[in-house]
Amino acid sequence: MNEDIISTNYPVSFKDKGYDFLKEIIKNNNYSKIFLHVDENTKKCCLDYFLKHLNNLKIIEIESISGEENKNINSCLKLWQEISEKGGDRSSLLINLGGGVVTDMGGFVASTFKRGIDYVNIPTTLLSMVDASVGSKTGIDFGVLKNQIGTFYDPKLVIIDPNYLDTLPEKEKLSGYAEVFKHSLISNNHIFNQLIKSNNIFIDSKVIHDSISVKNNIVIKDKFEKKERKSLNYGHTLGHAIESFLLNSNKKLLHGEAIAIGIILATFLSYKLYDFSKKNLELIKNHLKNLFGNTNFEPKEIEKIIDLLKHDKKNSHGKVNFILLKEIGKPVYDVEIGKDLILESFDFYLS
Amino acid sequence: MNEDIISTNYPVSFKDKGYDFLKEIIKNNNYSKIFLHVDENTKKCCLDYFLKHLNNLKIIEIESISGEENKNINSCLKLWQEISEKGGDRSSLLINLGGGVVTDMGGFVASTFKRGIDYVNIPTTLLSMVDASVGSKTGIDFGVLKNQIGTFYDPKLVIIDPNYLDTLPEKEKLSGYAEVFKHSLISNNHIFNQLIKSNNIFIDSKVIHDSISVKNNIVIKDKFEKKERKSLNYGHTLGHAIESFLLNSNKKLLHGEAIAIGIILATFLSYKLYDFSKKNLELIKNHLKNLFGNTNFEPKEIEKIIDLLKHDKKNSHGKVNFILLKEIGKPVYDVEIGKDLILESFDFYLS
Repeated sequence: MNEDIISTNYPVSFKDKGYDFLKEIIKNNNYSKIFLHVDENTKKCCLDYFLKHLNNLKIIEIESISGEENKNINSCLKLWQEISEKGGDRSSLLINLGGGVVTDMGGFVASTFKRGIDYVNIPTTLLSMVDASVGSKTGIDFGVLKNQIGTFYDPKLVIIDPNYLDTLPEKEKLSGYAEVFKHSLISNNHIFNQLIKSNNIFIDSKVIHDSISVKNNIVIKDKFEKKERKSLNYGHTLGHAIESFLLNSNKKLLHGEAIAIGIILATFLSYKLYDFSKKNLELIKNHLKNLFGNTNFEPKEIEKIIDLLKHDKKNSHGKVNFILLKEIGKPVYDVEIGKDLILESFDFYLS
Repeated sequence: MNEDIISTNYPVSFKDKGYDFLKEIIKNNNYSKIFLHVDENTKKCCLDYFLKHLNNLKIIEIESISGEENKNINSCLKLWQEISEKGGDRSSLLINLGGGVVTDMGGFVASTFKRGIDYVNIPTTLLSMVDASVGSKTGIDFGVLKNQIGTFYDPKLVIIDPNYLDTLPEKEKLSGYAEVFKHSLISNNHIFNQLIKSNNIFIDSKVIHDSISVKNNIVIKDKFEKKERKSLNYGHTLGHAIESFLLNSNKKLLHGEAIAIGIILATFLSYKLYDFSKKNLELIKNHLKNLFGNTNFEPKEIEKIIDLLKHDKKNSHGKVNFILLKEIGKPVYDVEIGKDLILESFDFYLS
């Protein structure tokens, strides 16, 4: 059985142990009402399974519309209103059962309803298990920018139950794998070598546990992203811009698909500026392209993606700051990069 | 000169000392951009005066529409968008120059933009000086309920400058006085006796300093309102319901006007249930009615106001909890009160 991972003030608890802990929290806190936030997918695929673990509890279901394009203020308004109309108060509990959209948005709703109520996250996708389960970031998209509005707000508990992955489409598993792979790049050669030697993705609860641990160790060192936490942004500066740019197009990518491209671009920049190993650069590019395929970008599209960079939340004073790697597990922070080199990295990706 | 009041992690600083401290904060934090949030009133009455104290700084003005009825999510959307479009990032500073609507809403916008940026409050009304300047509550109204959406988020600094009161309408000063008076009721006889002996309101920077100190001492003991902070809600349970109910009617009241009524009602309940002095009850009723006049309520309106109580943020588990007083400075928490007694308190108010 996987040991609990202890994050900032709350545990990430695995499988049955997680549900037991949730029942204990509910028993000890005398909540006035328990709200369960699902979206149409998790209502269909995960709700029955979840309820089996929490039988005899009176739970009020609230539902949001699935998809990153609905991670916005309108969905929050609907959730705030439903919770309010159904008698939610300061002593209510919100349980988020779903992927990153459900947990990020549900966390934001919990952090702002009556100035903050308790919430528990149960991520049901690989991406939300390894990425959104620790770190206490909540948020919604605003305008063209991802997570522009949000808070830092700890959940009471996160439950990781890999059984939810059984109903997850392969494409979604792959999307989560991009973050698993990124965690290996910023941690050590051991995990990296394990992943790179396979032409397929292999996910079990040990892989998930190790990946969350990598992120958690970083978050505990630096919750508010002054230094170390920035390394989690590896591949995300351009990855986010690509994801935002394609969000409303017919080439729309899943988060991890965009991040996989961002990782290749960032690793090329690391090679150019910090002598990151050429051999590993090629290994990474081949591994990710083999898994994720190739996305084509027209020069005009690349220009627009670069324009979007200046809005990235991680940037300030109008400068675009990249995280690069000297080698596996050795990040360099706040590297400013000119447009020419970014264009060159796209050439490398497309080659 | 008034000494700084030290609140949870930040100072409340008076007059010139406040502006000096703001300049120091700006100098030390290397902000990427400084945004100044005003509404149409403070733009007209306070902006020039404020800018004189901060000359040579590049400041980006953003404006919201004044009035409690605009303390809503649409105004936040406009502010988030302006800050985003004008190049705001995580290293930006937001200065709120205005009454409670500007500081509450601006604080909420700051707490949620890019997961939280620095902000400074400069309250320009008596109400916001004595009530909103300490306590770190941010919020907007949602549906029919006041402050239903919000956060706890500390400013970097609060500046109190009574010069802003010179342009404040008398009615607004009176509204703020209700909170000054409430602070006396929950602190001690000394302040209470000073206020009650006058048939007019007298406000100078010592009165403001003492009133903020009363609130601050309570907030420091209990930031998240588990116990002592609830005493600040004296008169607010029914006061808020009255304010919400009349918000869109032709009998609309200012916050303090509604709270003055709520104080009379709560004091009557204190007299009935906790032997609060009959003499002081009459003194309080006469003092407040003399200053604020009388508001009439039809029986049907009282029913609707009582209906609204169950949505009060301070309540949980469907129970309506009142703060009452055994005597001046001796609060009783979480008193459940039946409808009949509430109706009786309205009879007393109207008599």
